[in-house]
Amino acid sequence: MRLRNVKNKGELLKSSSYLIDDPNAYLNKWHEIFNNNNPIYIEIGMGKGKFIEENALNNPNINYIGIEKFDTVLALAVKSIKKDIPNLRLIRIDAIKIDEVFNKEIDKIYLNFSDPWPKKRHSRRRLTSKDFLMKYENIFRNNKTIELKTDNQGLFEYSLESLSDFGYTLYDISLDLHNSEANNIITTEYEDRFIKKGNPIYKLNAKK
Amino acid sequence: MRLRNVKNKGELLKSSSYLIDDPNAYLNKWHEIFNNNNPIYIEIGMGKGKFIEENALNNPNINYIGIEKFDTVLALAVKSIKKDIPNLRLIRIDAIKIDEVFNKEIDKIYLNFSDPWPKKRHSRRRLTSKDFLMKYENIFRNNKTIELKTDNQGLFEYSLESLSDFGYTLYDISLDLHNSEANNIITTEYEDRFIKKGNPIYKLNAKK
Repeated sequence: MRLRNVKNKGELLKSSSYLIDDPNAYLNKWHEIFNNNNPIYIEIGMGKGKFIEENALNNPNINYIGIEKFDTVLALAVKSIKKDIPNLRLIRIDAIKIDEVFNKEIDKIYLNFSDPWPKKRHSRRRLTSKDFLMKYENIFRNNKTIELKTDNQGLFEYSLESLSDFGYTLYDISLDLHNSEANNIITTEYEDRFIKKGNPIYKLNAKK
Repeated sequence: MRLRNVKNKGELLKSSSYLIDDPNAYLNKWHEIFNNNNPIYIEIGMGKGKFIEENALNNPNINYIGIEKFDTVLALAVKSIKKDIPNLRLIRIDAIKIDEVFNKEIDKIYLNFSDPWPKKRHSRRRLTSKDFLMKYENIFRNNKTIELKTDNQGLFEYSLESLSDFGYTLYDISLDLHNSEANNIITTEYEDRFIKKGNPIYKLNAKK
């Protein structure tokens, strides 16, 4: 995502009650932060946060953690969260370190419009590569569920194969989500732009 | 497929050395027909037979059996096979009876542009429904491989889910086969028409 810089982003992030500044300190303790034992769902690469914010508002009995690598994007997310949402937190880490932050604590992972890393030599960086799926094994609590949306055909084909090969069962697949029978779809900002252009959105759920 | 009637189709079929008139009689004996122990691949719904004929010509060490329900279609296939192809046979059965004809003898099943049966109440008739996958369990020898091509989005989504749910691992998936890196693709007559129109062809392989 190309973004203009956000003014005072340092202060904005520092003053946010959503942002957990030192996520590694909460390994094994995420339920303490939320003060309940509700399931925890995470979105890796939340962008400006619309998707996870709406999910958190709609589902108060589920805890949500949005993960983003870049300060500027994170600051935009912080700016956009107007309401008080007790079941939402944000953290700033590179996804590659996800298993240093969570340990058998996560019930669902959302991957929305992740970087497709189209070159074969970069395929291990895709968030559905075997390398990442192995990391997810360590952060999932019991049932393992991944929900993925993308507009990228190559990433979608790769993800179907990689998840299937890793032992996931695929369900609720759509090759054109917004012209399907599915409804009440919570979209990302990126997705909204693509729908307007008429591009198909690919969607899959995977469980293990 | 809508077809004009084929003249003398009765005689044509009767005189064909490819058509096995009483396939049930060869249960457990298909290798005798080919006089070798090479793998046997079948195509369920072979239409006019271009796909299976080209495969048989290209792979003399594999035996091929084309399956078709309708006399008229079968007659067109018989008419179109000009060369002598010892590793090819055709049979006329309804796919629902496939496990009355084969018993642990098949190594691969091709499903090309099968009837999508789009209505939910007909979903069990789809050739990748659980009902059919259970029948295939009885006809596969050791490794189970299904290769599917279709231009129908609904059938493709359904097949991905159904095969995954049944324990198949999916690989070599393409959402636009003829604009992918794959090459040396043997097409069906139906497929050729669709490619000309620019429609995407969906493809998957599944193994178990």
